[in-house]
Amino acid sequence: MSEPLVSVVHKPSGKAVSAPAGTNLFSLMAGLGMAQSATCGGNGKCGKCAVKIEAGSDHLIPPTESELKLLPPGEIDKGYRLACAISLPPVPSFIVRTRSVGYMKPKLQTTGEAVAVSPDPAVRKYVVRPVDSGTSGEMLLNLLRKRHSVKCRMDYGALKTLPGAIERGKGIVSCVTYEGNTIIAVEPGDTSGECLGFAADIGTTKIAVYLVDLNSGKELSSSAAPNPQALYGDDVMSRIAFTMAREGNTPALQKLLLAEVDSLLLDCCGMAGRNPRSIYEGCFVGNSCMMHLLLGVPPRSLAFFPYTNAFRNSVTIMAGELPRRLHVNRAARIFTLPLIAGFVGADTVAALLAVGQHEADGIHMLMDIGTNTEIVLSDRNGSMACSCASGPAFEGMHIAHGRKADSASIDSVSIDRRTLEATFRTIGGERPAGICGSGIASAVAELLKSGIIGKNGKIRGELSRTTNRIRKAKGDYFEFVLARKDETQTGRDITISQRDVLEVQKAKAAIYTGCTLLMRRKGVTADQIDGMTIAGAFGQYVDKADVRAIAMLPEVPPDRIRESGNAAGTGAKMALISRPKRKEAEHIGRSTNYYELALDADFTREYAASMLFPVAQDMSSFAGRKEGRK
Amino acid sequence: MSEPLVSVVHKPSGKAVSAPAGTNLFSLMAGLGMAQSATCGGNGKCGKCAVKIEAGSDHLIPPTESELKLLPPGEIDKGYRLACAISLPPVPSFIVRTRSVGYMKPKLQTTGEAVAVSPDPAVRKYVVRPVDSGTSGEMLLNLLRKRHSVKCRMDYGALKTLPGAIERGKGIVSCVTYEGNTIIAVEPGDTSGECLGFAADIGTTKIAVYLVDLNSGKELSSSAAPNPQALYGDDVMSRIAFTMAREGNTPALQKLLLAEVDSLLLDCCGMAGRNPRSIYEGCFVGNSCMMHLLLGVPPRSLAFFPYTNAFRNSVTIMAGELPRRLHVNRAARIFTLPLIAGFVGADTVAALLAVGQHEADGIHMLMDIGTNTEIVLSDRNGSMACSCASGPAFEGMHIAHGRKADSASIDSVSIDRRTLEATFRTIGGERPAGICGSGIASAVAELLKSGIIGKNGKIRGELSRTTNRIRKAKGDYFEFVLARKDETQTGRDITISQRDVLEVQKAKAAIYTGCTLLMRRKGVTADQIDGMTIAGAFGQYVDKADVRAIAMLPEVPPDRIRESGNAAGTGAKMALISRPKRKEAEHIGRSTNYYELALDADFTREYAASMLFPVAQDMSSFAGRKEGRK
Repeated sequence: MSEPLVSVVHKPSGKAVSAPAGTNLFSLMAGLGMAQSATCGGNGKCGKCAVKIEAGSDHLIPPTESELKLLPPGEIDKGYRLACAISLPPVPSFIVRTRSVGYMKPKLQTTGEAVAVSPDPAVRKYVVRPVDSGTSGEMLLNLLRKRHSVKCRMDYGALKTLPGAIERGKGIVSCVTYEGNTIIAVEPGDTSGECLGFAADIGTTKIAVYLVDLNSGKELSSSAAPNPQALYGDDVMSRIAFTMAREGNTPALQKLLLAEVDSLLLDCCGMAGRNPRSIYEGCFVGNSCMMHLLLGVPPRSLAFFPYTNAFRNSVTIMAGELPRRLHVNRAARIFTLPLIAGFVGADTVAALLAVGQHEADGIHMLMDIGTNTEIVLSDRNGSMACSCASGPAFEGMHIAHGRKADSASIDSVSIDRRTLEATFRTIGGERPAGICGSGIASAVAELLKSGIIGKNGKIRGELSRTTNRIRKAKGDYFEFVLARKDETQTGRDITISQRDVLEVQKAKAAIYTGCTLLMRRKGVTADQIDGMTIAGAFGQYVDKADVRAIAMLPEVPPDRIRESGNAAGTGAKMALISRPKRKEAEHIGRSTNYYELALDADFTREYAASMLFPVAQDMSSFAGRKEGRK
Repeated sequence: MSEPLVSVVHKPSGKAVSAPAGTNLFSLMAGLGMAQSATCGGNGKCGKCAVKIEAGSDHLIPPTESELKLLPPGEIDKGYRLACAISLPPVPSFIVRTRSVGYMKPKLQTTGEAVAVSPDPAVRKYVVRPVDSGTSGEMLLNLLRKRHSVKCRMDYGALKTLPGAIERGKGIVSCVTYEGNTIIAVEPGDTSGECLGFAADIGTTKIAVYLVDLNSGKELSSSAAPNPQALYGDDVMSRIAFTMAREGNTPALQKLLLAEVDSLLLDCCGMAGRNPRSIYEGCFVGNSCMMHLLLGVPPRSLAFFPYTNAFRNSVTIMAGELPRRLHVNRAARIFTLPLIAGFVGADTVAALLAVGQHEADGIHMLMDIGTNTEIVLSDRNGSMACSCASGPAFEGMHIAHGRKADSASIDSVSIDRRTLEATFRTIGGERPAGICGSGIASAVAELLKSGIIGKNGKIRGELSRTTNRIRKAKGDYFEFVLARKDETQTGRDITISQRDVLEVQKAKAAIYTGCTLLMRRKGVTADQIDGMTIAGAFGQYVDKADVRAIAMLPEVPPDRIRESGNAAGTGAKMALISRPKRKEAEHIGRSTNYYELALDADFTREYAASMLFPVAQDMSSFAGRKEGRK
């Protein structure tokens, strides 16, 4: 006997679907793109898949232990449940509502530096005439050689389109060539004006796509969205673990990713008023795990020491070889930039290409701060990279009230030194729903400056007698109330807990340790660094003073520090439009050495020491400590 | 309002399907593989799609004019109709039966000469050990270079399988290499003993597949079947016309072909007890149109003078690029041998390779007799090919009672010189249902020898007064009764009509003319020819004396004529197992010149003269006529 079908309606989207009773609600919603905010993969751990059951709750089992733990008191009474804990009951109709804040368009950074590279793309079009019904593939190749001095072979895809193109072209066809040696498509008439490509930066958290005119090298439009794989875990390790659970999970994650890339491509084409069938090439960058998942290569070797990649070099394939068709030209190629190590990926290669660190004089350091922070130090002896597990604190995750950056996120905090009253700013000026990465850094810097936390990061519980902003939380720990429930969207206080401060300490210690050990390895001191570039969203939005206050970076003179926005995206565009730049990227991939911090004898000691904060009264001694260690 | 669904049951297969009322019965049956014998493509012309309606005939329209013309009197009363003339009536159940003779396994020749070539295949396996979870693609390539001195790159397909193979291989993997420069698959453990390939000969009429062990070069099994595209016409021109009618028709014909190839491959693997996933490469030969259709390249340029191919060189693709998946290894490659001209295809190249004509001393002629007959004449100045539209008479088609060679086909005839009584033999010793190609040649030779037809092929009507074997048919023409209705399976007389004799005349004249003009062009006389090889099924089964009697071939001394069976299949196997032979085939393709008979000023005169038969009393003068023309 099969289970009866339940009609499920989702609000506010209005999407409706029928599914057998017994289906897990989280899986159902995830599959339909109804839920976006869960970060534990539906395992009842993050509490972020809370939904309100508006009809059909009669046959539901009572709330589970994890629901009772994760849902605030009172919400269960209002009909809130965790979607992952619910099996569809055998009712005819079931209505489920997600909190509207989950539907805000997240703020995602896609703007990098302008691309200032002369176009020399791999894909070029040549118009050939006259052709007629007797023109064979070999004859066309001869015409191309005679008229345009281009010596090509013709690939199978082009061959299939040849007779039709010749028939419809009425004497004229356009040959789409790749790398100057292969005709990959033949099109009727003169289509030489339509020659597009795209660059894509695949982050663990977000995906950004840029549409580029290959003839002019100009960016036409861009679009970004959260990485839909986040349903299966915030970080790469959760996703790798997911792929290892079942053979089909790697292609499942691959298809999720490709579907989102395709949707962004269509957005870009819509905005630019261009036909996606005129897209002939795409360049992908991203961390090593994302590049494995993009290509459907199981990333299991990244799960175990020594964290090797299944592949390291640039990979070029036909878009049609992917298991989910992109709405691009049938002949389109896609390629990935090379990887440096298991945790230093193609995005780092692209960022190095974008900032030109591989060809710069002097000593330069590039870092891309994220869940994993990559650092590359270059001098005349070459480049060396390392990777720090900085954790997702600076991306608003693993923080009690943390959230990705959107209009309802607190991104800046101020604490009155005297009254200890807090004021805050949200990105969109709305009532706050949580706090994002730059907000966390700002809050901890303010807690430190106002003396609420000390060198070791401990919240001074005795201050709870002075202000009700500081209060006792679970265990013996204290928390700081940043926004009171009557000020927030959720109706709950937004607090910074002792555990949140610890997450920030761990993150900043990891980054500081990475910089220090890499510099030591290369025999470089902070003051010798001619330029430090901070790439990535965090670098662009955070206040440098906050970063300095919490001692996240080595003491490089402030005027030598710059942020470069989304350098990875810029590098991807450069590699897309310029074959010489692509070669440079390949050289960067091959020539950058990887330094494994975990094998450095000083790692543990250095990391433990870096957990401490510099405090106002002993800022100088903090600097002194570092100098003393050199 | 949509049409009601009709449940259609086919007998004797028992297949059942539901289709909307109004659906054409022929199309429905064709799509389900229920009908195999129609040769006009369902256009009401061949009368071979006759079916018996056993239930549901109530709402049918009365028989059409073409049914009344094509179905024997009495059959319509028994419930027979032409499937192509029937639209499904709106009845709940409809039962249709095809004549059982249509279900006999046809006799198809697949045996060629033994392959005597040392194996040097493109696909080889190398076992590499030890590997572990930290072995990346680049590391595996290094191991392969060190252990086996093979320098490869790794392709995308192999990359995707790498992590899984390393995990399951427990320290050992097998690298499948292609052309000694690319790893196309990585398999767990030592699989080096399993390395198969196949050769396929795609004829207009039949498809033959050979399973080969690439390590040893030995053929393991073979299987053959009619080309299912025959539903859309007997000859290449009908199929080209079909592809031009609608864009989707080329891939439709391609998929029909691939489905049959796949089925034959599975047959072969079943017979040999091997796993089709161990098949890594396939070599395809066939005429130019079949090679276009195999690859899904629209063959429209073959429809118009100068009949050029869309491609001429060998094409290599991944089996996965085909629109219908073959049950071979995911990494399998397939390749086609080159084409010489629009009507001299890869099968001719393969036959030349098999008989070694490209490297033989002296003057040699190869011909492959079929609907289209290809002739290649080679001397020390090189090879020249031509093509004759000999028509399908020698394949049993366009003949009133013609049929493909199977157990119920007459393949040899004898006519008593005195009584003019006929005796015949069927291939399987069964009661006859028709007459196949060699039977037609035999019958016409006997008609000639017994004086029933004269030099111009006309049946002597006056003999109808002597024997009831000769009788008046439609118009002023006479026909010869070969088998009387009480001797046949069909309950109808099997006759040779004046039109049938004319078809033979046209066929033999085309072949004779082709040989003559090609020899003249190269300045070669019949007696200078050191060897003449007749490839193909007709050459193998026909009696040489019959061919001689009807003057189909130039007067090459009989001891210099040999038949080589399915030389095309043999050549395909050679190219499959030997890379040097593949290179030779490519050289044959490039270096063989094509001679267009239609442009020869003597063509029409020569063809008209060759329509005549040599008759017993003036055999010498026939020979003399030819000599005189030189």
